[in-house]
Amino acid sequence: MISSGAPAALINMIFLDGKKLSEKILDELKIEISGIKKQLRLAVVVVGENVIVRKFIEQKKKTATAVGIDIRIYPFVEKITTDELRQKIADIVHEKKNTGVIIQLPLPEHLNPQYILNSVTPEKDVDVLSARSLGNFVVGRNKILPPVVGAIKEFFEEYKIDYKNKYIVVVGAGNLVGRPVALWLLQEKATFSVLRSSTPNPAEFLRKADIIISGVGKSKFITGDMVKEGVVIIDAGTSESEGQMVGDVDCVSISGKAFYITPVPGGIGPLTVAMLFRNLVTISRLRSN
Amino acid sequence: MISSGAPAALINMIFLDGKKLSEKILDELKIEISGIKKQLRLAVVVVGENVIVRKFIEQKKKTATAVGIDIRIYPFVEKITTDELRQKIADIVHEKKNTGVIIQLPLPEHLNPQYILNSVTPEKDVDVLSARSLGNFVVGRNKILPPVVGAIKEFFEEYKIDYKNKYIVVVGAGNLVGRPVALWLLQEKATFSVLRSSTPNPAEFLRKADIIISGVGKSKFITGDMVKEGVVIIDAGTSESEGQMVGDVDCVSISGKAFYITPVPGGIGPLTVAMLFRNLVTISRLRSN
Repeated sequence: MISSGAPAALINMIFLDGKKLSEKILDELKIEISGIKKQLRLAVVVVGENVIVRKFIEQKKKTATAVGIDIRIYPFVEKITTDELRQKIADIVHEKKNTGVIIQLPLPEHLNPQYILNSVTPEKDVDVLSARSLGNFVVGRNKILPPVVGAIKEFFEEYKIDYKNKYIVVVGAGNLVGRPVALWLLQEKATFSVLRSSTPNPAEFLRKADIIISGVGKSKFITGDMVKEGVVIIDAGTSESEGQMVGDVDCVSISGKAFYITPVPGGIGPLTVAMLFRNLVTISRLRSN
Repeated sequence: MISSGAPAALINMIFLDGKKLSEKILDELKIEISGIKKQLRLAVVVVGENVIVRKFIEQKKKTATAVGIDIRIYPFVEKITTDELRQKIADIVHEKKNTGVIIQLPLPEHLNPQYILNSVTPEKDVDVLSARSLGNFVVGRNKILPPVVGAIKEFFEEYKIDYKNKYIVVVGAGNLVGRPVALWLLQEKATFSVLRSSTPNPAEFLRKADIIISGVGKSKFITGDMVKEGVVIIDAGTSESEGQMVGDVDCVSISGKAFYITPVPGGIGPLTVAMLFRNLVTISRLRSN
C-alpha cells in the first residue's frame, strides 16, 4: 500500500450512474406495465408532516406517474396511536386496489416502527421490511429483494463487478441499508464485516475492503485515507449538510483512490426507488399467476 | 504480536465448562417445571435412520427425562415426500399435547430442509428455525433465542466476558450456528465478520479477533498460529474424527494462546440442549399467560 503522502498514480474514478441505470429500468417497467390490464397502485402510508418525507414522496409520485403506476397517499395525523395506525394499515393492505403498501419512514418518535411495519403482509410488502418478509428473505424464500439490495445487485451486474469473491465491509446496520445488505450477504456466501458507529477503528477494516457498502448517514464519514486503492464504494448513506443531500463518503479526498463510487445524489437513491416499483410489478405478476 | 517461534509466556487456558453450566440450568428448569401443572412435551420429528441422529435423540431423551419433560418421537420413513411430511408436521404442531416441535436435522437429501422447517409455527418453534421465527428474531421480536445463541450468551454472562465492545469473527454461516449467531450480532450492535469456507485468508481475520465463534464442522480448522493471544473461542463445530466427536479447533496448538475455549464435547453442545428445553418452558409459560 502507498502511504497517503507518497506520490501515486491516481485512479480514474468512475461514478456509477444511478440515475441513468434507473431510467433504463423504469423504461423497461413502463413497457411491462402497459401490457398489464389491471391498474397497479402503490399505497403510501404517511404519518405527520416533514420536509424530508415530503421530498421522498414527491420523488415516488413523479416516478410512479412516469411508468404508469397509480400512487395513493394515506395521510395520518402525527399523534395517531400505534393501535389505531395498525388498524388503518390493515384496511389499506386489505384494499384490493392497492397492489403494494409502504410505510414512509421515518415515523414519529412515539410509534414503534417495526411493529407498524409488521402490519404489512408479505404479499404486499414491496419494501421487504416486515418481520415475515425478512424471515422469508433470510431463508432465501422471498420473491422480491429489499429495494436497496436490488439496487446494489443491479449496479454490480451492470458494471460487471464480481462481489462474490471479494471482501465486503458494511458500514452501519440500520433497517434500510445495513441490515438488509448483511442478510443478503449471509445468503450470498460472501466474506463480510459489519461495522457500527461504536466500532473503535473503522479504518482498519475499510482499508482491507474490496467493496464498501455504507449506510450510516454521516457526512464525510469515509475519507480517502481510510480506503485502499481500487476500492468499489456503494454510498447508500443520506444526510443533510448545508441544505444539500449528501452521502457518507468524502468525495474530494476519496478521488483518485476509489475505482467505482456511487454518488449522492444520483447514485443508489434513484435506483432504489426504481427497484421499489419493480417489486410492485413483480408481486402483481406473482399474484395473477 | 509474538511470532509462533519466539519464547512466550503461555496463557493459562480456561475450558468453559458447558456440562456443568448446563446442569445448573437444568436443575433450575426442573424446579420450575415441577411448579407447572400441565405436562410439557417436546415432539421430535425424525426422518430415516442414522447413527448421529440417534445419538442426538438419545441425548435429548435423557435430558428431558431428567427435568420432567415428556418427549415424543415421530418417526417417518426415509423416502417420505416433502408434501406428505409437511402435512404430518402440521398435525403434530396442531396437537395440543405437544408444547414444542423440532425437526431433527440433518434430513435426507431429497427433502428441502428450510421448507420442512417452515411448517413449524413460531408458537411451537423451540429451535427458532422457521422463516417466521427467524423474521421475528431479526427484528428483535421473538420471545426466545435460537438455542445456540442462548448457549453462547449464557457462557458470556457466566464467565463475565464482555462481547459487546469486542471484535467477533463468526466462522461459517450455516443454519444451526453461523446464521443465527450473525443475526444475533446484527441486533447486538457488535462489530463482526463472517467467514466462509471460500474465504481465501481466514487467518487474517482470526488473528485480529477478540472472540471467535466457529461452526464449520471441520476438524482442526482453527490452529494456534491463526489466533491472537488471549482470544476467547466458542467452538460450536461438530464433526467426526476417528470415531470421536470433535470441534473446529485444534486444541493442542491453541493451548497457551486462547484465554477461554469451549471444548468439544462438553462445551456448547450440552448447553445448547439445555437452552432448547428452557425455550420449551418459556413458550409454555407465555402461552398460559
